[in-house]
Amino acid sequence: MTSKVILLAHGSGGTATHQLIEDLFLPRFNNTFLNDLTDSALLPVAGENILFTTDAYVVDPPFFPGGDIGRLAVNGTVNDLSVCGGKPLYLSLSFILEEGFAIDKLEIILQSIAEAAEEAGVVIVTGDTKVVGRGSVDKIFINTSGIASLITPSALSVKNIKPGDAVVLSGSIGDHGIAVMLEREGLELKSGIMSDTAPLNRMAEEMLREPDAVRFMRDPTRGGIATTLNEISGQTHLGITIHEAAIPLRQEVAGASEILGLDPLYIANEGKLIAIVAPDRADMIRGIMRNNRYGKEAAIIGTVTEEFPGRVILKTKVGGSRIVDMLAGEQLPRIC
Amino acid sequence: MTSKVILLAHGSGGTATHQLIEDLFLPRFNNTFLNDLTDSALLPVAGENILFTTDAYVVDPPFFPGGDIGRLAVNGTVNDLSVCGGKPLYLSLSFILEEGFAIDKLEIILQSIAEAAEEAGVVIVTGDTKVVGRGSVDKIFINTSGIASLITPSALSVKNIKPGDAVVLSGSIGDHGIAVMLEREGLELKSGIMSDTAPLNRMAEEMLREPDAVRFMRDPTRGGIATTLNEISGQTHLGITIHEAAIPLRQEVAGASEILGLDPLYIANEGKLIAIVAPDRADMIRGIMRNNRYGKEAAIIGTVTEEFPGRVILKTKVGGSRIVDMLAGEQLPRIC
Repeated sequence: MTSKVILLAHGSGGTATHQLIEDLFLPRFNNTFLNDLTDSALLPVAGENILFTTDAYVVDPPFFPGGDIGRLAVNGTVNDLSVCGGKPLYLSLSFILEEGFAIDKLEIILQSIAEAAEEAGVVIVTGDTKVVGRGSVDKIFINTSGIASLITPSALSVKNIKPGDAVVLSGSIGDHGIAVMLEREGLELKSGIMSDTAPLNRMAEEMLREPDAVRFMRDPTRGGIATTLNEISGQTHLGITIHEAAIPLRQEVAGASEILGLDPLYIANEGKLIAIVAPDRADMIRGIMRNNRYGKEAAIIGTVTEEFPGRVILKTKVGGSRIVDMLAGEQLPRIC
Repeated sequence: MTSKVILLAHGSGGTATHQLIEDLFLPRFNNTFLNDLTDSALLPVAGENILFTTDAYVVDPPFFPGGDIGRLAVNGTVNDLSVCGGKPLYLSLSFILEEGFAIDKLEIILQSIAEAAEEAGVVIVTGDTKVVGRGSVDKIFINTSGIASLITPSALSVKNIKPGDAVVLSGSIGDHGIAVMLEREGLELKSGIMSDTAPLNRMAEEMLREPDAVRFMRDPTRGGIATTLNEISGQTHLGITIHEAAIPLRQEVAGASEILGLDPLYIANEGKLIAIVAPDRADMIRGIMRNNRYGKEAAIIGTVTEEFPGRVILKTKVGGSRIVDMLAGEQLPRIC
């Protein structure tokens, strides 16, 4: 580690996070389950395989247009299980509350959790609540862990990805990160930008039921689609070319990003899937996405290549090309 | 709810916590798994039963005599699974770190986690790290969730408890809470009091392998043995009589409790079991505990009675009796 203290960048999902995991975590927790570094661990229990995942939610502010920390905590963990080929079944719910937090706000968050769980078809089965003194936590943090059964015969793996595969994205980018950022900064843009937080398990399940179509899936949250695609190109040692003109991006989000000095490729999404798909099935997978209420703007945005191994290349609207690197630092802290 | 804001008491494990769960949580997350309110949920997955639990650790300070937040986070979740009849297999690990937290302190905590997991025979399979700005969290909070297979044919239940059953405690009370409190307050008592944080899964498994002996188990953490016994008497509508002279209590812990104005019956333990046991098997169960390195001072401390239904009665050393109520508030915040 180059820094002697924890930096915001260590929680960014970018290169500093990866360095933390590789330098500090993996040497101590070396095991085949963890070493895959997928969003969920595939575990044998009583002769069957299950998926298991965990996530802490520290979004600031806890209420934002389109959702709140409760809805986020359910959907985020549901989606982590879904992209690994799971059918989410059970969630745990663990709160850390600041002394003085308003009970009526907690009730709104609990109601969001109940509704999100109902929509996703998962059951909240166990929980924990801790309260700490004023100033020891910022209002409310939530951890959800989740268990899923496996839809596919085995977990999805980057190893299945081949040159020529299509990159399919389920909708517009940047909505969540920008919605939270505008709310946090109190910017009165009257933009109408809403978080895209949504459960993607039904969309993912339908995609996975198609044989020989989906090679791999991820939800591009922290670090946006740039980070997710870089992780895939890094792990496969293949290139990925994406086309700027094909990437769905709301005009309002593009405008707000420009004002805030942010690149939408790196902004978090909380209701989007990236699927790497066999080339001849890409149209069909996009069609499944578009039939789902959370995938109406799905698009084929790029291709896996043998060229530029380990690199993500953006073909710009004006006809140029540029390398899309993984960010070292943190563009938007506390967006999930 | 009588209060309009969250109080420290809501995280105490006492009556305010129970009220929060009953008023706010259960009406919204009403399901058979959660309604049992045991330490772990028993879940059918792929035709088999597994146990699932979650806990947040916010102990202040994160380092204390006998352990640290990392060791606590592994042992606490291992023990929650064990007392429900589980063989702990897998843990998740989720960090919320304060910007500026020293990397070398994080490394010590990670090392503790690795060693504790190794001792308990569990595998860390998935994780998450969030970093928040200075002042938004007090140094480091950890969530561990855990999965276990079931040792017993079904989960242990209070329904199995009968009048006449023995109450067996695996060792001395109050060590953890007092060790943390003295460290937090910087009290130089030179007491030598250490946290009892320990994995109890092997002791519990051996106890459960004995047929028709253990009716029910709990680890008396937040709220101490008084709270655990009150929960049992409340749920069974039976009485529990305990004998002060039989309860193992270190002289140093008794002394420090008196100085701090605390009742050891309510102080958290992190390496103790309370087992409700068939009367004719109590000696044998105590023997199993005493053969384990974490149960050398095990004792039979009381009896389940038909008298005083729903009440815990303490027979004092001087020959009197008093009711041991559940605490409404929080005696010792942030001890786990």
